[in-house]
Amino acid sequence: MSQTFDIVVIGAGPGGYIAAIRAAQLGFKVACIDEWKNAAGGPAPGGTCTNVGCIPSKALLQSSEYFEHARLHFAEHGISTGAVRIDVPQMIARKDAVVRQNNDGILYLFKKNKVTFFHGRGSFARALEGGYEIAVSGAQPATLQARHVIVATGSRARALPGVPFDEERILSNDGALRLQAVPKRLAIIGAGVIGLEMGSVWRRLGAEVTILEGLPTFLAAADEQIAKEAKKAFDKQGLKIELGVKVGEVKATRKGVAIAYTQANGAEVTLEADRLIVSIGRVPNTEGLNAEAVGLKLDERGAIVVDEQCRTNLPGVWAVGDVVRGPMLAHKAEEEGVAVAERIAGQHPHVDFNTIPWVIYTSPEIAWVGQTEQQLKAAGRAYKAGTFPFMANGRARALGDTTGLVKILADAVTDEILGVHMVGPMVSELIAEAVVAMEFKASAEDIARICHAHPSLSEATKEAALAVDKRTLNF
Amino acid sequence: MSQTFDIVVIGAGPGGYIAAIRAAQLGFKVACIDEWKNAAGGPAPGGTCTNVGCIPSKALLQSSEYFEHARLHFAEHGISTGAVRIDVPQMIARKDAVVRQNNDGILYLFKKNKVTFFHGRGSFARALEGGYEIAVSGAQPATLQARHVIVATGSRARALPGVPFDEERILSNDGALRLQAVPKRLAIIGAGVIGLEMGSVWRRLGAEVTILEGLPTFLAAADEQIAKEAKKAFDKQGLKIELGVKVGEVKATRKGVAIAYTQANGAEVTLEADRLIVSIGRVPNTEGLNAEAVGLKLDERGAIVVDEQCRTNLPGVWAVGDVVRGPMLAHKAEEEGVAVAERIAGQHPHVDFNTIPWVIYTSPEIAWVGQTEQQLKAAGRAYKAGTFPFMANGRARALGDTTGLVKILADAVTDEILGVHMVGPMVSELIAEAVVAMEFKASAEDIARICHAHPSLSEATKEAALAVDKRTLNF
Repeated sequence: MSQTFDIVVIGAGPGGYIAAIRAAQLGFKVACIDEWKNAAGGPAPGGTCTNVGCIPSKALLQSSEYFEHARLHFAEHGISTGAVRIDVPQMIARKDAVVRQNNDGILYLFKKNKVTFFHGRGSFARALEGGYEIAVSGAQPATLQARHVIVATGSRARALPGVPFDEERILSNDGALRLQAVPKRLAIIGAGVIGLEMGSVWRRLGAEVTILEGLPTFLAAADEQIAKEAKKAFDKQGLKIELGVKVGEVKATRKGVAIAYTQANGAEVTLEADRLIVSIGRVPNTEGLNAEAVGLKLDERGAIVVDEQCRTNLPGVWAVGDVVRGPMLAHKAEEEGVAVAERIAGQHPHVDFNTIPWVIYTSPEIAWVGQTEQQLKAAGRAYKAGTFPFMANGRARALGDTTGLVKILADAVTDEILGVHMVGPMVSELIAEAVVAMEFKASAEDIARICHAHPSLSEATKEAALAVDKRTLNF
Repeated sequence: MSQTFDIVVIGAGPGGYIAAIRAAQLGFKVACIDEWKNAAGGPAPGGTCTNVGCIPSKALLQSSEYFEHARLHFAEHGISTGAVRIDVPQMIARKDAVVRQNNDGILYLFKKNKVTFFHGRGSFARALEGGYEIAVSGAQPATLQARHVIVATGSRARALPGVPFDEERILSNDGALRLQAVPKRLAIIGAGVIGLEMGSVWRRLGAEVTILEGLPTFLAAADEQIAKEAKKAFDKQGLKIELGVKVGEVKATRKGVAIAYTQANGAEVTLEADRLIVSIGRVPNTEGLNAEAVGLKLDERGAIVVDEQCRTNLPGVWAVGDVVRGPMLAHKAEEEGVAVAERIAGQHPHVDFNTIPWVIYTSPEIAWVGQTEQQLKAAGRAYKAGTFPFMANGRARALGDTTGLVKILADAVTDEILGVHMVGPMVSELIAEAVVAMEFKASAEDIARICHAHPSLSEATKEAALAVDKRTLNF
């Protein structure tokens, strides 16, 4: 017996669970299918973000930051302690508890919003007259029918060709988040968000970390000046980052992993490590979706092909988040999820990729929104730039964390803010102001004229806006 | 021989030094006079904010928060430390170093912006044809002449009648910031910003703190719901706050201070303490200004009478900051300082008191902007309210700090945001987004539709905006 819904959402990551909830709020009868299992085999909705991404990484970043801070910075405050030690299993257990809280939270939200949850894998069975049949496989198989299907199956870590993840010695983000001891020598391939965040966690806890990056430029997607400043800070912390390398053979050794690679200068070397994290990007999850059963169009990477509004080639089938084009960010997936639910309800929402913020939760944190200076140059756009260093910010001084700066790029003629780039303390939170400003097409002068609480780190944003007009007050 | 300037600024606190720099940027020849002395007798510009206010309090709040956090919360992260101890003189020395950095920063800014600095007390000598003569007394007396005078002499702590500050046992904010040991029993009269912040510092370090407040309502200026939530958190921390008391005789005892007071229920009691902080408000600093020499009009509190544009009764004489009406906030003084400099240059700036944020740097932090719910009720304004608890925020969970909430008040018809009220982690920084939103007359729906980085505390602001329309996604 099949059950009928208005909308079936496949995947309960940030794109899927949010789409399901929004659709239910709009009056639809909604099901959401997710196969993720917790340690006890029960449902663990939330996708990569909640289970092996944003949330657990932030938990470990927090714990490891406290640990490092206690070791390196307590003395200046007059705080003395005995030896500072980390119990890794306890740290991991706390992280697991945080994840579980979030899993349970989503199950609660489904109940509250009357979304029917199915624990299992969702896949296309066949097209129906004016809808689709979706099969749920798993402990409790089911058959669902719906007029609309939202695919939000996310992505998974890309492995090196011929080097599968064993999650013992060769780790994806998943294994990197559940090590039970600090590896003495940790190698990481890929200096993107995941590589930098995981490298930071384990370096703080005592690992000797080497990150190998194929690109010759560090954090090529970020504003160059910000990337340079961040690199300087990471170098100082002892995070070894080698750029422009070409990774060769990776093989398991008796005690760890040996990574042969060619350095930027052409030298052939081998890095011996106890553990290797491979963070070279992610691939869309469309295996097992049985897309061919209904003729759902995928691109050559396996991503679902969608238009600007997240419509696929099939009527009534939508796709959002990591499984489609665009940045693989939880909040991008959420925005798309909401937008699709609203479009099905006949509304006309819009997601502007240009005002989606990017955040890297290292220390210093890195965050930006809009265009980088190199993008503006490449586009031939006339712009003004203003920067303000946290070194000159009163609260950063009181905090004892003055690394980094805020940079604002504005149109040379209209003064409209085109990009805001930050590296420094808590910029993951400061970026919200910049996003709102850009959504309102604020000029740099607008931000410069808005009162900011003193003492706050957000004053650096105001001063960077003043700097666009070359009139900082505190630098 | 008198020296001639376009503008003389009396006082180098946040209102004064910022006014002086902005005026110099606009092409005026500017002098700034300030008498504050550092321990070596040298200049210490920055006023109350830098020397005995915002900056040093934030330094001590930071140090004491690290101390308490290590003691109470490290274990859950798997971090062990042995006994955690605080060396108060070292903590105070670090705070002094932070203050000195800020003092020196201002002296550097004066040089950079070509503001002539005079170390001494500035006062009116006499009116001249089209200007004023200002006397500088101190180690290097001087006589200055200027067409425009900006008075920014700030405020000082109000003492209890008949109970002068000795800064040994009976402390103002000044003495409270330089105790060299943790008092066993600390009494505080006044549960405002200073009382709560100083009470938090010394409680965290081990003092038994009792705060006596005359008003029957806790934090009457804040939104009631926020104040209640904050009170609950302070109670849990063991910060004793007694409301509705009437303080009687305060007398020094052999070892401390005895404070007789009547409790709200009428009972007469005496509180014995080792130290007493009196934080019952501040009075404008106009003594010694020799206002009468030029006929500058003061009000009955001794504040300089100004109009909306900070003009006094005298042509060419302006006053800004704590010495005039309005909230005694550093950033309010700064905005007025900039505005006056620009008005003298013929520009038409505007300072909107309604979008000046308020922050209390306790833990949880408290921050707000715009109208409170009780103000809207009193004004008979039809409004909608939306709240979102940090308990349901992913980053707060990862952080391990889920106290508090964000609350947004919006017009019932237009949906325009009328007030944003926060209590919780880092809300001192989150409030910046709300101020920008209000400056742009954003509706709650605007904020609800703007992408916020995940996971971030700022998502709580977005969800509170969704809550205004009763459609939170994560609660």
